[in-house]
Amino acid sequence: MTFSIHGLAVARGIAIGRAVLAAASRMEVVHYFIESEQVEAELARARRARDAVTQELQRLQAQMPPDVPQELAALLDVHILLLQDETLIGGVRQWITERLYNAEWALTTQLELFSRQFDEMEDDYLRERKADLEQVVERLLRHMRGAPDAVVCPPRLAAGAGQQTTPLVLVAHDLSPADMLQFKQSVFTGFVTGVGGKTSHTAIVARSMDIPAVVGARGVSQLVRQDDWVIIDGDAGVVIVDPSPMVLDEYRFRQREIDLERERLQRLQHTHSVTLDGQPVELLANIEQPQDAAAALKAGVVGVGLFRTEFLFMDRGGRLPGEEAQYQAYREAVEGMRGLPVTIRTVDVGADKPLDKSHRDSSLNPALGLRAIRWSLADPAMFRTQLRAILRAAAHGQVRLLFPMLAHLSEIRQTLAQVQLARAELDARGLAYGPVQLGAMIEVPAAALMVQQFLAHFDFLSIGTNDLIQYALAIDRADEAVAPLYDPLHPAVLRLVADVIAAGARAGKTVCVCGEMAGDAAMTRLLLGLGLRSFSMHPAQVLTVKQEVLRADTRKLAGWSAQVLAAEEPALLLGAPLA
Amino acid sequence: MTFSIHGLAVARGIAIGRAVLAAASRMEVVHYFIESEQVEAELARARRARDAVTQELQRLQAQMPPDVPQELAALLDVHILLLQDETLIGGVRQWITERLYNAEWALTTQLELFSRQFDEMEDDYLRERKADLEQVVERLLRHMRGAPDAVVCPPRLAAGAGQQTTPLVLVAHDLSPADMLQFKQSVFTGFVTGVGGKTSHTAIVARSMDIPAVVGARGVSQLVRQDDWVIIDGDAGVVIVDPSPMVLDEYRFRQREIDLERERLQRLQHTHSVTLDGQPVELLANIEQPQDAAAALKAGVVGVGLFRTEFLFMDRGGRLPGEEAQYQAYREAVEGMRGLPVTIRTVDVGADKPLDKSHRDSSLNPALGLRAIRWSLADPAMFRTQLRAILRAAAHGQVRLLFPMLAHLSEIRQTLAQVQLARAELDARGLAYGPVQLGAMIEVPAAALMVQQFLAHFDFLSIGTNDLIQYALAIDRADEAVAPLYDPLHPAVLRLVADVIAAGARAGKTVCVCGEMAGDAAMTRLLLGLGLRSFSMHPAQVLTVKQEVLRADTRKLAGWSAQVLAAEEPALLLGAPLA
Repeated sequence: MTFSIHGLAVARGIAIGRAVLAAASRMEVVHYFIESEQVEAELARARRARDAVTQELQRLQAQMPPDVPQELAALLDVHILLLQDETLIGGVRQWITERLYNAEWALTTQLELFSRQFDEMEDDYLRERKADLEQVVERLLRHMRGAPDAVVCPPRLAAGAGQQTTPLVLVAHDLSPADMLQFKQSVFTGFVTGVGGKTSHTAIVARSMDIPAVVGARGVSQLVRQDDWVIIDGDAGVVIVDPSPMVLDEYRFRQREIDLERERLQRLQHTHSVTLDGQPVELLANIEQPQDAAAALKAGVVGVGLFRTEFLFMDRGGRLPGEEAQYQAYREAVEGMRGLPVTIRTVDVGADKPLDKSHRDSSLNPALGLRAIRWSLADPAMFRTQLRAILRAAAHGQVRLLFPMLAHLSEIRQTLAQVQLARAELDARGLAYGPVQLGAMIEVPAAALMVQQFLAHFDFLSIGTNDLIQYALAIDRADEAVAPLYDPLHPAVLRLVADVIAAGARAGKTVCVCGEMAGDAAMTRLLLGLGLRSFSMHPAQVLTVKQEVLRADTRKLAGWSAQVLAAEEPALLLGAPLA
Repeated sequence: MTFSIHGLAVARGIAIGRAVLAAASRMEVVHYFIESEQVEAELARARRARDAVTQELQRLQAQMPPDVPQELAALLDVHILLLQDETLIGGVRQWITERLYNAEWALTTQLELFSRQFDEMEDDYLRERKADLEQVVERLLRHMRGAPDAVVCPPRLAAGAGQQTTPLVLVAHDLSPADMLQFKQSVFTGFVTGVGGKTSHTAIVARSMDIPAVVGARGVSQLVRQDDWVIIDGDAGVVIVDPSPMVLDEYRFRQREIDLERERLQRLQHTHSVTLDGQPVELLANIEQPQDAAAALKAGVVGVGLFRTEFLFMDRGGRLPGEEAQYQAYREAVEGMRGLPVTIRTVDVGADKPLDKSHRDSSLNPALGLRAIRWSLADPAMFRTQLRAILRAAAHGQVRLLFPMLAHLSEIRQTLAQVQLARAELDARGLAYGPVQLGAMIEVPAAALMVQQFLAHFDFLSIGTNDLIQYALAIDRADEAVAPLYDPLHPAVLRLVADVIAAGARAGKTVCVCGEMAGDAAMTRLLLGLGLRSFSMHPAQVLTVKQEVLRADTRKLAGWSAQVLAAEEPALLLGAPLA
């Protein structure tokens, strides 16, 4: 029987394949009492499972391909640490020795105890750690049962997954980071999970692998049976189970269309990004690691518009890298871009992107707390370490230095003074450094409203639309309860973006958009019409946006964009043909 | 030896008196093992202490004067509930029966255990609950020791505090809500605590009693000795210990000045609020309970500009009052104002002002989550219950209906549709209701930026400067790490406020400011200069603001205000004389 389940579209494309069901999220556990003389043996069994899982996770970590998202690696660390957690391990030991529970029972009892405590907590971060704990316990249980694989594979799969010809899609209630790492080089052509959001492990990995995925498809792991044919529509966020031949044909047709479109796009790689009326448009890449420079070049960008340095920081279990390590990383990115400009943003960590627990303490609203430049200015020595490393990297290529979250004149002054001081420190140490252009992110409403002051102090501006929308609308888009109100086309948002672009143009200074808006091809015409000539986005989005640029005539777009800007409901006009 | 300690100024004025030290925050506890046959007796002793403290807290609650802040009453509830908490009680029982600890030891052991768990949590709300738990345990310990009073009073005080002639100030590390309730009718003329912030119990009660207070004066309870002379400067946030006769004289002089100023202000009560050039200015009160109408009338206001209904809601331990109960409360406020207009704002609860735990769950940034009108629109039946109650109350006087946090055209439409539906429901039930003016809060930057759409749909607007500043600057002012960046005089904030006032004037619709900016006499001239003619504030601030109005000449202020608005650093101009 055909039916469909709606979820969140998190990685684009269409996948068609037979369902492989991951094991149910909580395994069935047999409970029994052991004899007193079995205590040592049972403890040993628990220890062996722990050692085996630890080694398994460490092996996964060691074998991680370089393109694995850093968040995933960090989550794997959390799992390894949980296995050393004395409250967990000591608790299990106690249940075995004092109550004579078998090891599985001891483990699930301790999990239960923890879960209850986690449930009483009211903090998202901690809730996620509950899921981590469950995943670790499940992995331990699998080992005790002698079935260490996450996925219950149909026999023909177990025989040799690599030789599969039938396409397979993975269906699960939830997937742990370790699961996802294992699946990264696997045969699956699509993922569906019953839970999860836009930033769940599944979503992150699926996007990085460019494999269609739908998450939050409630009940999917109960409703889909092993080997069912499943269509995953990663554009619409729909999962179609047991489709009719007609539907299947239609989706296969769409799949071929998408493939064709990709091929066609690929041919644009070396085409110059110029509008029909001859306006050159700068397409840049957002990157997160020095190695991403390769993907950026391959996408045909003319530079990096945003190198997010916080991921370098977070990869170190809370330790900040020293000047030398940072310098090497920045230099690698700069050299990797082979003479093209690299915009390095100083670290945007803080309350909502904690390096370690100590930075999370006091914020009820981390997004409104000590983050980004506020966090840097609160620790000038740490800040200047980063500035010196960036200035030194600038000796090896074109570097633009970008500061996040500035909103006060006093912050601007302090920031520029720190740059001066960092240069003086390098002079004193006789170290070489290069010239840098200085830029500011416009991502706080107040910054957009005082753009003249920013233009007076900086060489270029970069609009961070994600945060700008968040603050202008007072909507945390990670909060499911209000996410539908997060609206890039809200007239107030467009007005702020348009005003900053216009002010930059009048001042003869470059304004770039580096938020998600820049990579959304549906927004390209509007942004061009508003006068934007510099876009920075994920490398995967560059060619689609370039295609829009090549088709655009900015002379015709200006009037239409002004209409969209003046509209009560701009979204209604966005799809409309040019006037 | 004279010295001074700096803290946070939370309640204005000068207090001079001898120090009365509250007991140290953690009492010394004697630990010993009991005999097995004493277990029952020890359990009974713990039970007695619990019963006694429960009764004591219930008595305090029953005797609460009507003007006690509702938050304090709610906190008392939390304490009473903690005393019934099985984890606490069961834990204590276990330590006594299984380890043969004496009751005090059992109690502090269990507290220690809890504290460690609380410390690992990363949520402010839960951290506060740790303080609650400590306060409850301390109260239990005092009872077990037979010394139930919080404050270690000098003998002469114990003899008859009411007959005291020497003024006394209370010095403590921290004060519990129960402590504060006991002190409310006491002899103290000032409060100092070593910890706490602007919204601590001490601060709330001190302000409601109009008694000078400084909180967060680190180490004050160690540094001040019993009976020291202490000056509390509630304006500057300074505590001067053992002052020299000269300093004492100076502060006594300032104290008399303040008293004189108050008397003088009092005479303005019945003066019409009109500028020198004859512009009438509407001064309104912000109230939180129907009974506050009396204080509002006494302050000489011409109406209520903001009746915050969420406090009515929160007083019920998470239960929402029914239509009838709400109607009675609103009617009481309307009738209490004797024909003057009352602006009733629909409930502003949600993620950051939880009615109960279930509403706090999913928000990492509650200020950017499901709150205020978003929360109301998410539960239309609940929302219409409030709307019907307000509409019915409007049959008894002038009512203006105000909606918080609107930011999207879709929300405006839904809100107005709900009002229509509520009227239709009352019609269907044949219940009487009155006409209301409809207004919207402007407190999200997007709302200020699309003010034209608001003016098209509403009869009046009210600028909530507190939230508007918070979102425009992306600063949570309750977050100590960034609170210094919360700046009402940021040029972007002033621009938003000025634009909304100007747009209202052009449309011929009333714009009121009801955030703290309205009650700050230092801002009155600027707001008048920007064209504001309606201010709503705490009743205690009305006369000071009225004095500023009476001295102002709006013809001279307009040009100066435009200069302030255009300045890079408006704060530098605010104190400047008129150009």
